[in-house]
Amino acid sequence: MKRARGTLPKGYLFSAAAAAIKKPGRKDLALIFSEQEALMAGMFTTNRVKAAPVRLDMKRIRSGRGQAIIVNSGNANACTGAQGAKDAAELSESVAASRGLKPNMVYVCSTGVIGKPLPMERIRPKIAELSKGLGKSTIDDVAAAIMTTDSFPKVVLRAVRVAGATVRIAGICKGAGMICPNMATMLCFILSDAAITRRALDAALRDAVAGSFNRITVDGDRSTNDTVLLMANGLAGNDVIAERTGAFSTFCSALSSVAAELSAMIVRDGEGATKLVEIRVKNARNRGDADKAAFAVANSPLVKTAVYGNDANWGRIIAALGYSGIEMREERTDISIGGIMVARKGLGTGRDGEAGEAMRKGDVRITVDLHMGKAFAKVLTCDLTEEYIKINAEYRT
Amino acid sequence: MKRARGTLPKGYLFSAAAAAIKKPGRKDLALIFSEQEALMAGMFTTNRVKAAPVRLDMKRIRSGRGQAIIVNSGNANACTGAQGAKDAAELSESVAASRGLKPNMVYVCSTGVIGKPLPMERIRPKIAELSKGLGKSTIDDVAAAIMTTDSFPKVVLRAVRVAGATVRIAGICKGAGMICPNMATMLCFILSDAAITRRALDAALRDAVAGSFNRITVDGDRSTNDTVLLMANGLAGNDVIAERTGAFSTFCSALSSVAAELSAMIVRDGEGATKLVEIRVKNARNRGDADKAAFAVANSPLVKTAVYGNDANWGRIIAALGYSGIEMREERTDISIGGIMVARKGLGTGRDGEAGEAMRKGDVRITVDLHMGKAFAKVLTCDLTEEYIKINAEYRT
Repeated sequence: MKRARGTLPKGYLFSAAAAAIKKPGRKDLALIFSEQEALMAGMFTTNRVKAAPVRLDMKRIRSGRGQAIIVNSGNANACTGAQGAKDAAELSESVAASRGLKPNMVYVCSTGVIGKPLPMERIRPKIAELSKGLGKSTIDDVAAAIMTTDSFPKVVLRAVRVAGATVRIAGICKGAGMICPNMATMLCFILSDAAITRRALDAALRDAVAGSFNRITVDGDRSTNDTVLLMANGLAGNDVIAERTGAFSTFCSALSSVAAELSAMIVRDGEGATKLVEIRVKNARNRGDADKAAFAVANSPLVKTAVYGNDANWGRIIAALGYSGIEMREERTDISIGGIMVARKGLGTGRDGEAGEAMRKGDVRITVDLHMGKAFAKVLTCDLTEEYIKINAEYRT
Repeated sequence: MKRARGTLPKGYLFSAAAAAIKKPGRKDLALIFSEQEALMAGMFTTNRVKAAPVRLDMKRIRSGRGQAIIVNSGNANACTGAQGAKDAAELSESVAASRGLKPNMVYVCSTGVIGKPLPMERIRPKIAELSKGLGKSTIDDVAAAIMTTDSFPKVVLRAVRVAGATVRIAGICKGAGMICPNMATMLCFILSDAAITRRALDAALRDAVAGSFNRITVDGDRSTNDTVLLMANGLAGNDVIAERTGAFSTFCSALSSVAAELSAMIVRDGEGATKLVEIRVKNARNRGDADKAAFAVANSPLVKTAVYGNDANWGRIIAALGYSGIEMREERTDISIGGIMVARKGLGTGRDGEAGEAMRKGDVRITVDLHMGKAFAKVLTCDLTEEYIKINAEYRT
């Protein structure tokens, strides 16, 4: 496994263990621990069906503080009723006991199959091992332990000079299927040693997620477990970052770049994906239209299969724009694929062949100019392949 | 090719020809002709991008009358600008001239690739042949000529005793991909010899479409060309059917059953589909919620691939309900698959294996009971398979 390059933020320790949650033989349980209590911000799925750990974390995040995150893959602990809530609470209590923390300083995340109780009899004995092992695993080990159908672990490290010190940010996430805005089956943990106010931390996270995890889509499905947690333990020794300052802008921009890089990794690793596809909508009537248009194109199975087949089938793109519910005029619409203008004012330019050739080279950018206003939106997605079907038809079997 | 069984409505003649519109070697052009001028009703795609023939027909249908339909497959004549409009008009004028009709008595429909001009040089010479050939082809030939990626022609014949005579209804359609409510890449022609008022004909069509073509989905994409045309030439000799009569109810019910059967054929023949899937949502808060819930489940790629894999993965169903935007409570939700209750009050019943076995038998019914109110909705869809990807990645190549 390739190691993430760069230096970690100060004061974080990692641990991973194999609890045979779905099947034996791989690490599927991990602990993230900050040596010092940290400020925390979090964002959670908008799905009305929320997994037990999500409901627990949503309560705990109100304090704005935390020190540990226990996370498992292989089982989502979603649709598990009272037992699920009990299990999530027990996990946090065990971790808290093992580190001498209050339970509300411990956050719990799960990802995997829905509707099955956590195999607590296999997880329970591992908590002490995890706690004792803190510092013996790397952040890459944690990134690997939270994978489900992901094909590679996702880690981004960043350092930025801000408010008199070097502040570091480390992000890990898992994605793969069920990726759609207002998040994905996506767990993301971003750790920083910045000293920052609680309000600023919260604002920075909202800003970063809006421009990254909420602008990606793999299959339009949204999960019950999506969670982004951001910790800042203040050990970098910088002056405390407050909102509406230059330092805040610098921190936001670094955080956003970490989130953007992680979210692009998720799309690139979309189930069965062979290409990253960037949809850019220009000159929409307003921001809402730009978003709707970009997501309609990004979520169209016909567009996604055409990208897979290197077919510059702009007819499917304009059809998606047409049913997206936005204000548009066919006769004003320009479409480029891979930098080649394939439709101008709603009419084919005869350059589909050229654009098809450009598509063969790999990642694809589709640009739509609606000529209706000035709003812009960008969305990342991936192509739709036979492999997506195979993975999802066989996921539980 | 299996012939449709039953007797045709009186006074309709058919013709089909090979014009090598997309490629040579198959009939891709057809003419439907009523010996007597007929009342006509029509419904068209809600996509803002409408093909040239759709725009033409939308104008012509205002008269409520017509006598002929010229239809081609292989090219949608969509996104073809002024030339497209000219070509559609020319087609109708040529047919009109060949039969001594006014052009506004002729309707034009196209289906196929978007963004390429119709090959008029190949179609033009075939119009006379089509006109002369009227009566030499069968309705099955027409159904075959309008196919694109359809794997079988779709014809339904029905007879009903109403208002003192036997009234006949014949329906043909094509579907396959891009199937979603507010219609599909779907052309449908329904021919009857009923005598009926214009208002009653219109109302009957709206009612039939609402319960059939607008309740199916293959991939969530809506096309630029969807058209349903209904002709009634009055040759059955029945007393004229007016709205709000018993005869009207009888006619509506026959028409609806034709539309329902055709729409089920479309889903069964969804691109790459191996199973017909019926989604039933019970006890939603209101009709809007019932519809949203049923379509969210029907359009979820994760649900559709699970059905393909015979995996009774109710977690994906409840997750789709959760993001559908409806009022629901996880702890009230019951889910059955293939008649086996797999989740009761949001919790697994442990019968997934049994349900998986039931799924292997073929078509699948998924029933969701929200326990939130009294509204009901039913939607038909199909599974999502590798074959869908293959068909759509290679459609133009």
